[in-house]
Amino acid sequence: MLTPNLKPTFLFPGSAFLFMMQITFIGTGGSAPTPSRGLPAIAVHAKELLLFDCGEGTQRQMMRYKVGYGSVRAIFISHMHLDHYLGIFGLLETLRMNSPSPKPLHIFAPSAFYEKFLAISGYKAANYKFVEIHAIRTEGDGKNEVKIYENDEFEVSAFPVEHGMRDAFGFVIKEKDKIKFHEEKAHGLGLKGKLFRTIQDKGEVTVGGKKIKLKDVSWVKEGARVVYTGDTTISKSVASAAKGAALLIHDATFSSESHASETEKREHSSAKDAAEIAKKAGVVQLALTHISARYSEKEDKNRLLEEAKAVFPVTILAEDGLVVDVK
Amino acid sequence: MLTPNLKPTFLFPGSAFLFMMQITFIGTGGSAPTPSRGLPAIAVHAKELLLFDCGEGTQRQMMRYKVGYGSVRAIFISHMHLDHYLGIFGLLETLRMNSPSPKPLHIFAPSAFYEKFLAISGYKAANYKFVEIHAIRTEGDGKNEVKIYENDEFEVSAFPVEHGMRDAFGFVIKEKDKIKFHEEKAHGLGLKGKLFRTIQDKGEVTVGGKKIKLKDVSWVKEGARVVYTGDTTISKSVASAAKGAALLIHDATFSSESHASETEKREHSSAKDAAEIAKKAGVVQLALTHISARYSEKEDKNRLLEEAKAVFPVTILAEDGLVVDVK
Repeated sequence: MLTPNLKPTFLFPGSAFLFMMQITFIGTGGSAPTPSRGLPAIAVHAKELLLFDCGEGTQRQMMRYKVGYGSVRAIFISHMHLDHYLGIFGLLETLRMNSPSPKPLHIFAPSAFYEKFLAISGYKAANYKFVEIHAIRTEGDGKNEVKIYENDEFEVSAFPVEHGMRDAFGFVIKEKDKIKFHEEKAHGLGLKGKLFRTIQDKGEVTVGGKKIKLKDVSWVKEGARVVYTGDTTISKSVASAAKGAALLIHDATFSSESHASETEKREHSSAKDAAEIAKKAGVVQLALTHISARYSEKEDKNRLLEEAKAVFPVTILAEDGLVVDVK
Repeated sequence: MLTPNLKPTFLFPGSAFLFMMQITFIGTGGSAPTPSRGLPAIAVHAKELLLFDCGEGTQRQMMRYKVGYGSVRAIFISHMHLDHYLGIFGLLETLRMNSPSPKPLHIFAPSAFYEKFLAISGYKAANYKFVEIHAIRTEGDGKNEVKIYENDEFEVSAFPVEHGMRDAFGFVIKEKDKIKFHEEKAHGLGLKGKLFRTIQDKGEVTVGGKKIKLKDVSWVKEGARVVYTGDTTISKSVASAAKGAALLIHDATFSSESHASETEKREHSSAKDAAEIAKKAGVVQLALTHISARYSEKEDKNRLLEEAKAVFPVTILAEDGLVVDVK
């Protein structure tokens, strides 16, 4: 999907697709799987392969949808409900068996994850030296977004959501801001080749005796953002984190017309809730996920989609295997 | 499949299919899943629904193959390798969420299972009161078959296998022995209606002044047996437990022609090994399972099947979703 206000841009000629994020929905069910929906997991190609949540069966889903599970560099667990993390143990075991020395893998999870890891995998911890576990903590008033991971081109932040428990997080995957050149102007002033690198490093460069300042020939393109809520009821922190995002992937466990229990309403969102947040945050596109097993029939799924579209038209209903490109 | 030496027999007219076992292969891969093979799990309808091993993804596979996961009464875990038990936690969670008071569920597993259960599910143990966990122990010289579970018509025994670890078990699912009547002779002596029950209960009955002894009008039909090895290298205990079984479901991780590692050979069987055990034990039919992910191509799978058939012709290669009826 080409998002209308984020057309491909060029840092240097030929780099057209360098900063694309590709999102593959690995599992789009909620709580319990169905024959057509696996448990929560979303793969994001953001220079490296990152995995957000890892429900039971994720490794097999990744094989099925040809997302190279062997190249996952970091896994982010939104909260410690079983349907969001059980698959991590099987995936680690397969990675360990497939290679005598697997590449380092970072796991970011609520602090309670560590004891689960020890219990299931720890008895042969020597086999898991490639795994580094980090506890996610957000600071202060519990409303802040905290950067927890980065690579050359992207960074991942966590922010608290409202799921009726301590330590439930959403994530922002953000392309780093880029310096873009007004190419005609820059070329006109004689800027070419390695000088583009020099002016970025030093802030200015002298060409033919004339000093050219970076800010006079360039602008800053804010990086695209993809926001994944994990499980949450309607939450201000999501609206804030998602402001202007290219894609918001939101909990849409039930329909606003269904008789969801009070507990469910405190812990999850309806498709309509998700759409209202998307509208408030002014995102480009909304994807509904964490669909309850009760919506297995096509008409039920359409109901979810239609109620969201009535509020926020640019909405898709995630399906297992769906690929979305953010450019 | 109608097994040639176990034709349907009748205790009372109309009871033809009372003692049938139906086996559904839920997951037939080994160690790691593939798109076509899930991790180990076998459902056996033996009056109740029994589940043998429960690898990651089992609950979803049961939904896919329409094996009613909600009616599982007992789960038997062969050994504590992750691919054989991880799925139990997701299945329990779904059972718990689907019903305010799930029916009692027995889990039979090596003693090490209990701490895993506590670590993953125990923090809300009050939710798991419907689960009863039993440690499997076999006695004495480690070669004995021990009955661990029974219902009205079937019993399950465990026996030790050789998988390079303590506490690795195979299972025998045995139809209880039945008293069968020589119907013409019994009818000729005036036996009818409720008298068939009386003579079974008391060992004799008097009809028209004449005493009829049970043994003179009946014979004992030994119950059919299905044997599942779990993971094992070639093992005498399997040959012994499988003697005359209607169906032997045997570890066939690799081909005898492949370059399996020494470790693998100590812990698993080749298709040929399985066939040799089947021949030695004189079973009716052999099913190969726990197929390594390396055999994903059709020709590779045929190779496994052909090498077994060369030794033991009545062999099938299990596939996910395959149903085998034992009558």
